[in-house]
Amino acid sequence: LYSFVVIIVNEILRLNEDPNVQGLALDLQESLYSSKVLNAVKPEKDVDGLSSINLGRLIHGDAYNYLVPPAACAVMELLEDLGGKTVLLVGASGAVGAALQCMLQREGAVTVSCQWKAPQLQTKLHDADVVVVCSTKRDDVLLSWIKPGTTVISCSLHLLSGKRFFELSNMVKTTERWIQSQQYRKWDLRCLKLQPLSPVPSDIEISRAQSPKAVDVLAKEIGLLTDEIEIYGQTKAKVRLSLLERLKDQPDGKYVLVAGITPTPLGEGKSTVTIGLVQALTAHLSINSFACLRQPSQGPTFGVKGGAAGGGYAQVIPMEEFNLHLTGDIHAITAANNLLAAAIDARILHENTQSDKALYNRLVPAVNGVRGFSAIQLARLRRLGIYKTDPDTLTEEEVRKFARLDIDPSTITWQRVVDTNDRFLRKITVGQANTEKGFIRQAQFDIAVASEIMAILALTTSLQDMKERLGKMVVANDKKGEPVTAEDLGVTGALAVLMKDAIKPTLMQTLEGTPVFVHAGPFANIAHGNSSVLADKIALKLVGEKGFVVTEAGFGADIGMEKFFNIKCRASGLVPSVVVLVATVRALKMHGGGPNVTAGAPLKKEYTEENLQLVAGGCCNLQKQIQIAQLFGVPVVVAVNIFKTDSAAEVDLVCKIAKQSGAFDAVPCNHWSAGGGGAVKLAQAVEEAARQKTSFKYLYSLELPIVEKIRIIAQKVYGAQDIELSPAAQSQVDRYTQQGFGNLPICMAKTHLSLSHQPERKGVPTGFILPISDVRASIGAGFIYPLVGTMSTMPGLPTRPCFYDIDLDPITEEVKGLF
Amino acid sequence: LYSFVVIIVNEILRLNEDPNVQGLALDLQESLYSSKVLNAVKPEKDVDGLSSINLGRLIHGDAYNYLVPPAACAVMELLEDLGGKTVLLVGASGAVGAALQCMLQREGAVTVSCQWKAPQLQTKLHDADVVVVCSTKRDDVLLSWIKPGTTVISCSLHLLSGKRFFELSNMVKTTERWIQSQQYRKWDLRCLKLQPLSPVPSDIEISRAQSPKAVDVLAKEIGLLTDEIEIYGQTKAKVRLSLLERLKDQPDGKYVLVAGITPTPLGEGKSTVTIGLVQALTAHLSINSFACLRQPSQGPTFGVKGGAAGGGYAQVIPMEEFNLHLTGDIHAITAANNLLAAAIDARILHENTQSDKALYNRLVPAVNGVRGFSAIQLARLRRLGIYKTDPDTLTEEEVRKFARLDIDPSTITWQRVVDTNDRFLRKITVGQANTEKGFIRQAQFDIAVASEIMAILALTTSLQDMKERLGKMVVANDKKGEPVTAEDLGVTGALAVLMKDAIKPTLMQTLEGTPVFVHAGPFANIAHGNSSVLADKIALKLVGEKGFVVTEAGFGADIGMEKFFNIKCRASGLVPSVVVLVATVRALKMHGGGPNVTAGAPLKKEYTEENLQLVAGGCCNLQKQIQIAQLFGVPVVVAVNIFKTDSAAEVDLVCKIAKQSGAFDAVPCNHWSAGGGGAVKLAQAVEEAARQKTSFKYLYSLELPIVEKIRIIAQKVYGAQDIELSPAAQSQVDRYTQQGFGNLPICMAKTHLSLSHQPERKGVPTGFILPISDVRASIGAGFIYPLVGTMSTMPGLPTRPCFYDIDLDPITEEVKGLF
Repeated sequence: LYSFVVIIVNEILRLNEDPNVQGLALDLQESLYSSKVLNAVKPEKDVDGLSSINLGRLIHGDAYNYLVPPAACAVMELLEDLGGKTVLLVGASGAVGAALQCMLQREGAVTVSCQWKAPQLQTKLHDADVVVVCSTKRDDVLLSWIKPGTTVISCSLHLLSGKRFFELSNMVKTTERWIQSQQYRKWDLRCLKLQPLSPVPSDIEISRAQSPKAVDVLAKEIGLLTDEIEIYGQTKAKVRLSLLERLKDQPDGKYVLVAGITPTPLGEGKSTVTIGLVQALTAHLSINSFACLRQPSQGPTFGVKGGAAGGGYAQVIPMEEFNLHLTGDIHAITAANNLLAAAIDARILHENTQSDKALYNRLVPAVNGVRGFSAIQLARLRRLGIYKTDPDTLTEEEVRKFARLDIDPSTITWQRVVDTNDRFLRKITVGQANTEKGFIRQAQFDIAVASEIMAILALTTSLQDMKERLGKMVVANDKKGEPVTAEDLGVTGALAVLMKDAIKPTLMQTLEGTPVFVHAGPFANIAHGNSSVLADKIALKLVGEKGFVVTEAGFGADIGMEKFFNIKCRASGLVPSVVVLVATVRALKMHGGGPNVTAGAPLKKEYTEENLQLVAGGCCNLQKQIQIAQLFGVPVVVAVNIFKTDSAAEVDLVCKIAKQSGAFDAVPCNHWSAGGGGAVKLAQAVEEAARQKTSFKYLYSLELPIVEKIRIIAQKVYGAQDIELSPAAQSQVDRYTQQGFGNLPICMAKTHLSLSHQPERKGVPTGFILPISDVRASIGAGFIYPLVGTMSTMPGLPTRPCFYDIDLDPITEEVKGLF
Repeated sequence: LYSFVVIIVNEILRLNEDPNVQGLALDLQESLYSSKVLNAVKPEKDVDGLSSINLGRLIHGDAYNYLVPPAACAVMELLEDLGGKTVLLVGASGAVGAALQCMLQREGAVTVSCQWKAPQLQTKLHDADVVVVCSTKRDDVLLSWIKPGTTVISCSLHLLSGKRFFELSNMVKTTERWIQSQQYRKWDLRCLKLQPLSPVPSDIEISRAQSPKAVDVLAKEIGLLTDEIEIYGQTKAKVRLSLLERLKDQPDGKYVLVAGITPTPLGEGKSTVTIGLVQALTAHLSINSFACLRQPSQGPTFGVKGGAAGGGYAQVIPMEEFNLHLTGDIHAITAANNLLAAAIDARILHENTQSDKALYNRLVPAVNGVRGFSAIQLARLRRLGIYKTDPDTLTEEEVRKFARLDIDPSTITWQRVVDTNDRFLRKITVGQANTEKGFIRQAQFDIAVASEIMAILALTTSLQDMKERLGKMVVANDKKGEPVTAEDLGVTGALAVLMKDAIKPTLMQTLEGTPVFVHAGPFANIAHGNSSVLADKIALKLVGEKGFVVTEAGFGADIGMEKFFNIKCRASGLVPSVVVLVATVRALKMHGGGPNVTAGAPLKKEYTEENLQLVAGGCCNLQKQIQIAQLFGVPVVVAVNIFKTDSAAEVDLVCKIAKQSGAFDAVPCNHWSAGGGGAVKLAQAVEEAARQKTSFKYLYSLELPIVEKIRIIAQKVYGAQDIELSPAAQSQVDRYTQQGFGNLPICMAKTHLSLSHQPERKGVPTGFILPISDVRASIGAGFIYPLVGTMSTMPGLPTRPCFYDIDLDPITEEVKGLF
């Protein structure tokens, strides 16, 4: 057999290079389909779409994704009028089969489906006018059943040898065209004109004054195929992950991270810089670019003012769609998170109130007289080392092991969530109804974006990967101290089902009509605070080799950027090209010793009048954050986000110091008041910086002990002298290490208002010992999170929440008062 | 002035009848636009779209909805190439303005918007190539600003008098075409072929084997305009309420309610009958029909088996989309419900921890040095009888009245919700964190569909009406015993904003490709258990005069149907044509004395073998339910939902007794195993019955005292001898009456498993006294709900929830194990 493979591979390699061969289709015995053979076919010549697919995936049906689209094209091309014809699809299953049927039905065909080996196949073959065979296998019995005169279309060329079939040339032509359609498409983007007013109106007024392009138009402009998007209303669409497979050979664009210096409590405008930058790149410099943003929590939208869609003339539109339900991802996370929470308490109750036998009988009931384990239960048995498949053969001890999770209620770390600022749920007692038989316990609700499922959504790379991560989430320990996972509770599949649409990024647009992905928005303290890996990956393919993807990390660079590099880039394998570090004169004055800045209170005069001394004094923070980025080997461009009270001398001073401190460049930006036109210089600087050679590296090796990794971050990033673990923290570190979670990256939960753990210490604090009060873990998301002080995971509503200003006009359906 | 109006009206009436006049446009002084004048114009002749609009709404901008579409058509028609042209839209605001811009931009135009009186108008007019004026007013100053040579298009004919404007004829032509587009369109529906297998596969297998039509194709087939739908993925779309305005002169179709006899705990298949009936009507008898269904709660989907999309070959597809997030309506309800809950507790905390002055200063802060009340606060002041507008002029007493709601925590009736079966949230204590300063209280979570907001969604008739209902919701009493509403908390606008998309019904399809609305799914015990009024109203317009809308009422006819008539029909003003009463041999045997039927346990042999005596004995329940329907003056068709174990003799017997008991007809149905083809006889019987003259009437007058209304339902519907109120119930009745809520309809919260309050009493119980343990109110939804026994508003998860069987194939993205 081996020599055969060698001969075939050599022949394929020869045909690969033959300019007269436009496409290659394989017709081999099943035993010859080795990965060696499959990988030999050059992608450009690959008619069956078999190259770069490993055999396991081929057998599991992935090949259909390649085979069906040309089949549909072929049917439509070969038959002028499908109206009223009965088209039988053999073996076209799943979503792709459905798509194929849908395409044919739109042409007026009556479609009938049949599985490959189904008993009805013979009858159905007889009744069909057209037969489409979706399989890579040849089946002579099937061939013999087809009545003479039937049109047969096969997506696998080796079936075409029989004389009743369409000629090869047709097929090759169709397939060629299809291969074309699979390739990268140049953008043909029409930007929206912007005519900024002065004074700058409110965010919602600006958003409403601009008319977004229909999202299907935008999608087409940036090279998405019709079947790669799912439209949600006029201005939002989800993008399917299949695009990553289609464009897998397309080189990525440049990857830009927007981070910030240590901010004031008012924020320094990273989102507006992100959006201003892509507006400048695409609408003003005609360079493809994509902004990838986080979806905001709805809680604060109705609590304390402040949108997340950017602001002024650098916004995502329509901003009310961005800030409200969007495409339901956070709602899906809430549903999944709370299903798991309900399953934990219900399971404890059922275990506590039933004997082993009763529990087992309920878990493995007889259905129509037959008793069997479900797939998820068999998997659990195997994890327990029990390899039986007949429920009646388990020993009493095995029954007990299987039926009891023995969750220790005091160790439950999985909390319920709501996407509302509901402070009264910060600490609650549950289970107080009589029906719960006294099994009360203390619990809490977090804001939905603090759910580990949100952190997973942001880090996952595929549906399969997400499912695995969901299953691995640890929710508690059992009474022996072993971790209990979502998989142990049997809920992995249900969680994946609830999250199946949320995994697709949502496409929107900026005020100037350039594309934006909104996807995931994990908490920036107990989680990593970065938008999704999948959105970045898809965007990097779509912008093309010379394009730019700009994403944002929450909080200051010491937190968001550090997590972006050490956690998000590790999960994605992507290498960033440039860091844009956002600074404001306001924040620098604060670091230079200016008075306190508080949300809601008017700014002191130090911030509204020129004061070069305060600015100069505060630039140490900027310098330190530049140095942090340089630890990772990535060039830094400083963006000075201009406020109208900043003097030219102040701005010049910041730029000068930034360049002296090692920034590749430093430029002022006016995107808030001027749109992309106000960030052109920044865009040019970023483009220039992206041409630099980078030598990206992580800050620490995963193999180091947990404590060592924490120390490296504390010393090298925060500038701490050392760290100090509380006994509780130390014992958690020991437990996680013993449970085998020691080689995960670290996600520090620290205040963002200082490089240190003390919010009031501005500038660049030194000589401090960073106290680690506790250490927790998000095993599904894949990180350990040490707590530096207490972290609130549930915001509250103030005395006058901003919903006092929000209203809906029932006639025009316009939203009022939203920022 | 009056004589002028008379002359104008007479002239309009004459022109109305002149066959040479194709359209009428008014050009009058503003003072002459009275409703008399507006109403005189015949709709068919109405170019401005002014007929049947009352003046108040015209002034509020509704006229734009009529004026803008012809403007867009005119621009496209009059100008061959819009590419690169700058089109200025004057006064085109809101969603319609956005739509207009979008249409023009797709043609390559650059659009610029400007408000009517904006300072930039003159400059913009100068720069424009084309000016579109969206206004019914003439403005000579504006006219003088337009530079010579500019193309001007006006949607209001009186502007066309100037010579630079396009000729009237063009406009009339365009407008005529537009009027055409506004009219009812005949259906051109392509049904999907069904090839039922035997034995019947699982619901999800059947659903997946059928390929749904693309939802935009379906929408077009049933006469929806492109801008009346918002697509959500391939198979779901929201339908805009504007359709009700467009088709307001179109006669309604026939209105059919599907109700049931008193069911077993397994349910008797009302949903499958509903879907089977529309499949039969439309796919087999070519009669337009629409099914209107409730959206199911996601909680039970993962708890105890049982879908809500119908079953077998009478299903809504794709069933997994139907059963999961759908278009997010329940998530929106959850968000709105919980925002209100959080606002209540936060307000109590803030009032308890601040002086009157501090509270007032926070509620009415100075913004940029200026202090003012928000619109919502001014409204509250007026409700308190304070007519001041300057915050600094309130007396101490007025400040106190304004700033303090003084909610009595023990009277809070507003509960938090989740859409998860989470039994541990049935009774909880909230506020136990230190930050809440000891203001703990006992509370609970209900399942999301039990929220009053869900009941409102189902009963509302417009966005304006919904907003008013949301504002009226009573959440607690203050310390003086007065009701505190959502409006008092200032959250009405925010709730309306959260619900602005949920108010639009979701379009899906049956297995045979006929249309279905899914909208709202209020609890059938503490609420009314009926799908939405808006979905029914829109469907009644879409099916046309000879078409049918089939909707379903939860539980047995004694509950769901009674509430449908007395609550839902009262809210909608719609008059039902036919009641379909679903009966099964199984349930009738139970009423005839058969053994207990329990979910999960195998059926006893009485139910699987022929037993005419039990059937005959149980038909009393069927007879009673028929009589209940007749109380309302509506003809009844009995649908016997056939199971494979039913004998022909049993089915015949049921049909015979049903007809003897006053049913218009009684027919067996096989839709579950055969699709619409199995319900053709039912469809024919329903069509026949709908030709009967009905004399629909409510059961009680709203003016009767609360107790009297309860007694009428108990005696006439349930067959009780009398009712007995607990002291708590009586005091609630007194309170509601005193608070002015005495003339609301009654929504009984009673078990559905018996006509009486005792689930074990089958058949037709008599001689019982119905105990009313408590009485509550949903003021926003608009009903009083007496509790007959305790009602659980939060289901639990069993030992083996059905999520054990649910999984997602990460390659094909197929959902497995969902029913």
